[in-house]
Amino acid sequence: MVDAAQGAQTEFKGKVLALSGGVGGAKLCRGLAASLSVEQLTILANTGDDFDYWDLRICPDLDSVMYALADLNDEERGWGLRDETWRTLIAMRRLGGDEWFQIGDQDLATHVLRTQLLHAGHSLSAVTKQIINGLGIRHSLLPMTEQPVATKVNTDQGWLDFQQYFVRDKCQPEVRELYFEGADAAVLNPQVRQLLEDEDLAAIVVCPSNPFVSIDPILSLADCRSLLKHSAAPLIAVSPIIAGRAVKGPAAKMMRELDMPATALAVAEYYGDLLDGYVLDEADVEYADAIVAMGIKVCVAPTLMTTLDSKIALAESVLNFAASIKA
Amino acid sequence: MVDAAQGAQTEFKGKVLALSGGVGGAKLCRGLAASLSVEQLTILANTGDDFDYWDLRICPDLDSVMYALADLNDEERGWGLRDETWRTLIAMRRLGGDEWFQIGDQDLATHVLRTQLLHAGHSLSAVTKQIINGLGIRHSLLPMTEQPVATKVNTDQGWLDFQQYFVRDKCQPEVRELYFEGADAAVLNPQVRQLLEDEDLAAIVVCPSNPFVSIDPILSLADCRSLLKHSAAPLIAVSPIIAGRAVKGPAAKMMRELDMPATALAVAEYYGDLLDGYVLDEADVEYADAIVAMGIKVCVAPTLMTTLDSKIALAESVLNFAASIKA
Repeated sequence: MVDAAQGAQTEFKGKVLALSGGVGGAKLCRGLAASLSVEQLTILANTGDDFDYWDLRICPDLDSVMYALADLNDEERGWGLRDETWRTLIAMRRLGGDEWFQIGDQDLATHVLRTQLLHAGHSLSAVTKQIINGLGIRHSLLPMTEQPVATKVNTDQGWLDFQQYFVRDKCQPEVRELYFEGADAAVLNPQVRQLLEDEDLAAIVVCPSNPFVSIDPILSLADCRSLLKHSAAPLIAVSPIIAGRAVKGPAAKMMRELDMPATALAVAEYYGDLLDGYVLDEADVEYADAIVAMGIKVCVAPTLMTTLDSKIALAESVLNFAASIKA
Repeated sequence: MVDAAQGAQTEFKGKVLALSGGVGGAKLCRGLAASLSVEQLTILANTGDDFDYWDLRICPDLDSVMYALADLNDEERGWGLRDETWRTLIAMRRLGGDEWFQIGDQDLATHVLRTQLLHAGHSLSAVTKQIINGLGIRHSLLPMTEQPVATKVNTDQGWLDFQQYFVRDKCQPEVRELYFEGADAAVLNPQVRQLLEDEDLAAIVVCPSNPFVSIDPILSLADCRSLLKHSAAPLIAVSPIIAGRAVKGPAAKMMRELDMPATALAVAEYYGDLLDGYVLDEADVEYADAIVAMGIKVCVAPTLMTTLDSKIALAESVLNFAASIKA
């Protein structure tokens, strides 16, 4: 067990692959981007949440990560862009269009341009690259796959598309089962497949994202789990649960509905033998021994990221922890 | 020759079909909508200017007319919506997307919804109806055809798409020829074809729009010219030229480039035997005799529409003139 506070902030050597969902993951990605060079960091984002709305292609997790990396995200609202306005949405309401998913005026440019470039035949990776270039982001941000994968949620109200469950129905239905439509035919992003075989890869970081709807879609891609497992780089997950609660989103509620205790320990058990290391919040130090007993190294650190400093501090803790495991 | 000032504002009997382009036409349509009931007025708008931008379907003339009818148009700028903002456009610029055509945030809702509904298989007429309903417009506004027609401009710089000529190149290229791609395969809106055979049709009004790029695309649709010519209702055009100048847009410049004098008389000659009546501005009274000599009745009226009152006054002049011709 490593105490993050004791780890000296040495410069991290080698490359890092971060697996991320939306908001929680994006916060750690922001910290990692501050700590790692453009050549070192690759972020792989879940695209199981992607959907079409207003006939535009919306990629919520890619957007959350890119807006966080560009320091344009709205921390208070928790999603979307800062200083956002809603003029198109209000006009759309007047015209009788859909309005259950809120798209801000600035955010809309992302979706319009993405849709236009996808229609023109560009890959989602290429489109994402153009958009993040425009936002001044130089680190690599990649969609988990170029193929469409759609997370479906089986609930007490039947099967729902993810955004119906998540946004329209505000996560109120009780979750019974998740299914990633298209995942078996989808291929892990080739740039990441290549990175997983790169001998300079020094850490794989599973961000504090929802294990079921943010990380599992990535893991469900053909070969992905075994490629991660057989990579020489240590795989470290950061717990998305602090003292039995998710910082944001339905992870804890979902765990209870899926008959798991809503604890940081249960998340570690869920990831199981994928893990080489696990980062626990200080509030959850009680679980450290049980996780160590599973053969997983443990790092205890403050994992609540409310400021840029706390994001960078957690990123440094994770990187020092990874370096200690690799050594 | 009828002097509009002498015409009593009697209530007009029967139905009216108005052919309109964008801004100038939209002003008269606003006046006609104030003077005529929902059952009486049908506006047929040019769609030759329509184009795809940001992968959205933009119909500038339909939009200009609907925004004017809803009293939402920006009179000062001359196009688009009042109290408009440009947040999406500015964000699009940052992302490196196209920005030569200016789409405001409220306006964008129109294009997004239209595109979505067209993709879903609805006709442009049906889509337009949903949008104008949302804007509270109850008069009929129809696209000239459901099929795509694209105005192409042959210039000293070669063939240009209409919006490239009109917006991107600010009408600076010298016009040599116009071509309405798709017009020969396009069918006049069936609701208008039916109206032209309706015995209650009491006037066809050609609004003061650009004859070459707003009215000609309508006239170029198969049968349209002969259907208009053989309708029992008098066809009356309002001159878009006042004292040798277009109020807005390139009509006068285009006339000179097409080797015509830029006069109200030349427009009457251009429409030729389609016309039963012609509305001249008071500044152009000198042409009245020449037009009457062509066998066309003439009404002289103030045609500059700077206020709602002046739009209604011109509409009343046109309607009284039509009634006098029919009687």
